[in-house]
Amino acid sequence: MGRWEPDTRERLQNAALELFERGYDTTTAAQIAERAGTSKSTFFRHFADKREVLFVGTGEMADRAVAAVAEAAPGITAFDLVDVVLQAIIGVFDPGRRTWYGRRQAVVDRNPELRERDLIKRQTQNEAIATALRDKGLDGISPDVVVALIGLASHATYTRWIEASDERDVAALAADVLAELRTAVTALNQGPSANGTLPERG
Amino acid sequence: MGRWEPDTRERLQNAALELFERGYDTTTAAQIAERAGTSKSTFFRHFADKREVLFVGTGEMADRAVAAVAEAAPGITAFDLVDVVLQAIIGVFDPGRRTWYGRRQAVVDRNPELRERDLIKRQTQNEAIATALRDKGLDGISPDVVVALIGLASHATYTRWIEASDERDVAALAADVLAELRTAVTALNQGPSANGTLPERG
Repeated sequence: MGRWEPDTRERLQNAALELFERGYDTTTAAQIAERAGTSKSTFFRHFADKREVLFVGTGEMADRAVAAVAEAAPGITAFDLVDVVLQAIIGVFDPGRRTWYGRRQAVVDRNPELRERDLIKRQTQNEAIATALRDKGLDGISPDVVVALIGLASHATYTRWIEASDERDVAALAADVLAELRTAVTALNQGPSANGTLPERG
Repeated sequence: MGRWEPDTRERLQNAALELFERGYDTTTAAQIAERAGTSKSTFFRHFADKREVLFVGTGEMADRAVAAVAEAAPGITAFDLVDVVLQAIIGVFDPGRRTWYGRRQAVVDRNPELRERDLIKRQTQNEAIATALRDKGLDGISPDVVVALIGLASHATYTRWIEASDERDVAALAADVLAELRTAVTALNQGPSANGTLPERG
C-alpha cells in the first residue's frame, strides 16, 4: 500500500460519519466512496462493510494490549497489570480526533447495527487479552477478573475522553479511572457509606 | 394466551435447535414451525425472528435481577449484592432443560449471528441491572463494578452448569464461583502466588 493510504482511509471515515449523521440505514458504501472522492472498490479494499468504517483502531488496541501482557513483569500484581494494559490501549487514542470520536459515538449509540458491532469488537478484544493472560500463565491472577476490570477501565476512560466537558488529556483521565476502580474494588466487602464510585455511563 | 402456549413455545424451541444443529443459516422460521407442527404465524407470535427462539428466559433473568436489587437491604455490601442478584438469575435456569442449554450453547458458539444476539442480550441485562443499582442509590457502591462482577459470576455459573462433566446443581456451582470470585478480587493487589483463579472460559 502506498503513502496515500492513510489519507484515503481517513477521508472515507470522515465521509461515512457525515453521511451516517444524516441517516445510517439509508447510506451506502458507494455514497461514502463518492463523498470521499474515491471508488466503491477502494472503499471495500479498506473496509469489509459500511459498519467497519467507524471501528478504527480496534485491532491495534487489541494488539497493543496483548503485547503489554506478554511484556509484563512476572511478579506484577493483577491491578498493576490492569494499569499497564490500560496504558497500552489508550496509546491508540488520537488526540487530534477526539471530536471525531465523540460524534462517532453518538452515531453508534443511535444505531442497533453499530452497537452490535461495537459489542463484538469489545468481546473480541477481551478474548484476545484473556488468551494472552492464560499464555502468560500468571499464577494466582484470574484472567476473567483482570479482563473485566480492563474492559471497565478502558470504557470509562474512553467515555470521559470523548465528553466535550472534560478537556484533560487521556492519561490524566485514565489515572482518575484507575484510582476510582481501586477504591471501588476495595469497597466491595464494605456496606454503603464507604466510597468508591465509578462514572455511571455504560 | 391459552394454556397450550408453553408447550407450543417449547416445541418451537426444540424444533429450532434440532434444525440449527444441522445448519443455522439454511433454516427458516417456516421450517421450524412446520417441524413443531404449527404455523409460521404462530412462530412469529412467539418470537420476533429465528434468532430469538434460542434466547429463552433472558427477559425473565433481567426482571428477577432488577427485582433483587430493588428488594436488597440498604446496608448490604457490594459483594453480597452480587450474591443476591446471582441467586435471582440462576433461579431461571430450568434443571429439566440442562442438556437443551448445553446443545443450544454449542449452536450459539458456532454462529456469529447468534453470538451477536447473545452479546446484546447480556448487555441489555447489564444495563437493566446498572439502572436498578442507580435507582436504588446505594452510596459507596459502584454500579459498574457490581454489574461487571454479576456478569462474570452468572456467565461462569452458566458455563459450568451446561458442562456435561459437572452434575452438581446450579446453586452449588454458583456458591463455588462466588467463593472463587471473592478470592480473585482480594488477590488483585497481590502478585502471583496468591491464589484466586476463576474458570478460564469466555
